[in-house]
Amino acid sequence: MNSANDPILLTPGPLTTSSRTREAMLRDWGSWDAAFNRMTHSVCAELVNIVHGETDYVCVPLQGSGTFAVEAAIGTLVPRQGCVLVPNNGAYCARLIRILQRMGLAYVELALREDQPVSAAAVEDAFNRDSRISHVALVHLETSAGLLNPLDDIAAVCQRHGRRLIVDAMSSFGALPIDLRQSGIDALISASGKCLEGVPGMGFVIVRRSELEQSEGRSPSLALDLHDQYVYMQKTTQWRFTPPTHVVAALREALDQFMAEGGQPARGARYTRNCATLVSGMKALGFEPFLQAEVQAPVIVTFHAPRDPAWNFAHFYSAVRDEGYVLYPGKLTQVETFRVGCIGAIDADDLRNAVAAIDRTLVRLGIRVR
Amino acid sequence: MNSANDPILLTPGPLTTSSRTREAMLRDWGSWDAAFNRMTHSVCAELVNIVHGETDYVCVPLQGSGTFAVEAAIGTLVPRQGCVLVPNNGAYCARLIRILQRMGLAYVELALREDQPVSAAAVEDAFNRDSRISHVALVHLETSAGLLNPLDDIAAVCQRHGRRLIVDAMSSFGALPIDLRQSGIDALISASGKCLEGVPGMGFVIVRRSELEQSEGRSPSLALDLHDQYVYMQKTTQWRFTPPTHVVAALREALDQFMAEGGQPARGARYTRNCATLVSGMKALGFEPFLQAEVQAPVIVTFHAPRDPAWNFAHFYSAVRDEGYVLYPGKLTQVETFRVGCIGAIDADDLRNAVAAIDRTLVRLGIRVR
Ligand SMILES: Cc1ncc(COP(=O)(O)O)c(C=O)c1O
Ligand SMILES: Cc1ncc(COP(=O)(O)O)c(C=O)c1O
Repeated sequence: MNSANDPILLTPGPLTTSSRTREAMLRDWGSWDAAFNRMTHSVCAELVNIVHGETDYVCVPLQGSGTFAVEAAIGTLVPRQGCVLVPNNGAYCARLIRILQRMGLAYVELALREDQPVSAAAVEDAFNRDSRISHVALVHLETSAGLLNPLDDIAAVCQRHGRRLIVDAMSSFGALPIDLRQSGIDALISASGKCLEGVPGMGFVIVRRSELEQSEGRSPSLALDLHDQYVYMQKTTQWRFTPPTHVVAALREALDQFMAEGGQPARGARYTRNCATLVSGMKALGFEPFLQAEVQAPVIVTFHAPRDPAWNFAHFYSAVRDEGYVLYPGKLTQVETFRVGCIGAIDADDLRNAVAAIDRTLVRLGIRVR
Repeated sequence: MNSANDPILLTPGPLTTSSRTREAMLRDWGSWDAAFNRMTHSVCAELVNIVHGETDYVCVPLQGSGTFAVEAAIGTLVPRQGCVLVPNNGAYCARLIRILQRMGLAYVELALREDQPVSAAAVEDAFNRDSRISHVALVHLETSAGLLNPLDDIAAVCQRHGRRLIVDAMSSFGALPIDLRQSGIDALISASGKCLEGVPGMGFVIVRRSELEQSEGRSPSLALDLHDQYVYMQKTTQWRFTPPTHVVAALREALDQFMAEGGQPARGARYTRNCATLVSGMKALGFEPFLQAEVQAPVIVTFHAPRDPAWNFAHFYSAVRDEGYVLYPGKLTQVETFRVGCIGAIDADDLRNAVAAIDRTLVRLGIRVR
């Protein structure tokens, strides 16, 4: 099976990985093997470094998708009597609320529009209105629309008010600058198959060591207990349960490429070029981005669907796929949209070619964009 | 990276996979893509067929390691007021108890020795003593020692007494015959990276459809909610959260090889030959299996460690690894042992060669077995 003939994924993960990353999966590793466990250790150490957490933070990897790591962070770090503020401007924020509901934890929703970042003032208001709030769970980059929330501002207000901050950085980690030093962030969650350009199959939580150490026995779940995973790893160097060995090996290789590229600044710059190429190309075709440019993160772009009655996303999707590009459906509740990702082992030329393929497809299907 | 130079894993998973299986990971798949979702569907359908569940059972795949699927099955299927009988003859049974404790579910432990299979009579006794017992959670093959519990007998007694039966078949699924027809089994749990010879990264639960359909909203965890995963998949054909696409593709390929080999009977027969070769070879070197032959499953064999003071498992492990074979430590609480797996893409010649390597290593390290 050769990747040269495979479509390019313009999706927020799983995404197009490099062939070197995939080839790292051609080997089997034993979970008890020192070489494999050194690999896990080096991956975790580098993940912490990417966000400058060397001094006070540790990285706990977790089997499963990103949501598993989000739920694990909430369940391990929020005490039963805690109360979590959730600024809500998209589907991943709503999922945080569902997780809190399932766990029976108290929460306060701060409802926002899907194109509206949360402001530090609104968070501060919420603190002042409701003294029960002990934690904030913030989605850094709301992948539903591609919206960037102002992490530093929110972290500062949490720090000022002494509230704990848990950040879902699933689709921003590695692409956007995040600095844990003196930040007021207690935990940062992401996964292997997003902007680090590994394959999907593991999440990780970068968590303040002192917070983690206080959380023994708190998680209502054994599988999702980050404290237990951490303590076991410290003691044995091994994962608690069978690790996704091939996924870890791919992430190790993907991290080497991340470093060689120049780390987060270079990766962010490439994605910014990809995004700019995409947006200007799509605008030239008549497509209108859903978000204002100031709040658009260079990771995934939501476009309004054409108003032409000939438009049908499923048809359009498969016609563009036949041209070699995989698009992504919209995830907004009010307006009809579709999404195009700018992340993965792709560059501005790929985005340019994708826009050309979209252009040809519009002509072929007889769709007028406006 | 070529697998030809890699050590052979004589471990209960991750294990040695075929190069075809690993090469299936050389391609990226989109999670929204129809081709990928057809692949998931075909995998699930075949998993159900392997255990003859076509009529009344469905397969729900789950991201993460096998333990995640075990916890998901318990959390989704056992009501809050339920009470679970756990026959305990090893570490995986003990883990079931930890899961129940974390969830705050009532349970009754049936304590056994690590070399002692649970009997149907003991389970029946427990039912008669304690009418609260609503469910039994049985480990089919206790991988801690390699011990086989008599699944059919336990299933029959559960059926007669109208108790629900959840089976951890992690290291037996695909290798040993399991027949769900008229069986009294409600759920069967396994994972990608065991006797199906895929890579680790997903578990699955084969569950009686009528039981699953009654379990809406019961799981205390969102990520581990099998009902939610099932309903979403039925509605959309997609996984609820990002699937481990490469792991699924590897399992698809591994299942093709499983079918081509002749399904469970052929796989079981190969493992039986592997096990017989291993045991007779090791006995010739003076090693003594921990289990009686009647209760030894042909999957992993526990051997007593030599009494020679020169014995040190860590040294022995790495010396044998240098010869190209990865062994596994013991997991028993009372006696010093080590384990050798017979599963994976290996045959009797590999086991013969492994025994020869062990022999050479004993000589080199100056260890007397008895
Ligand atoms: C912001 C955010 N949070 C959570 C998730 C969930 O991750 P997963 O699908 O791996 O469970 C995603 C997935 O794209 C995401 O973008
Ligand atoms: C019988 C049994 N149950 C549960 C597990 C746990 O599976 P995992 O390590 O994938 O979480 C194993 C692993 O070997 C097992 O053998």
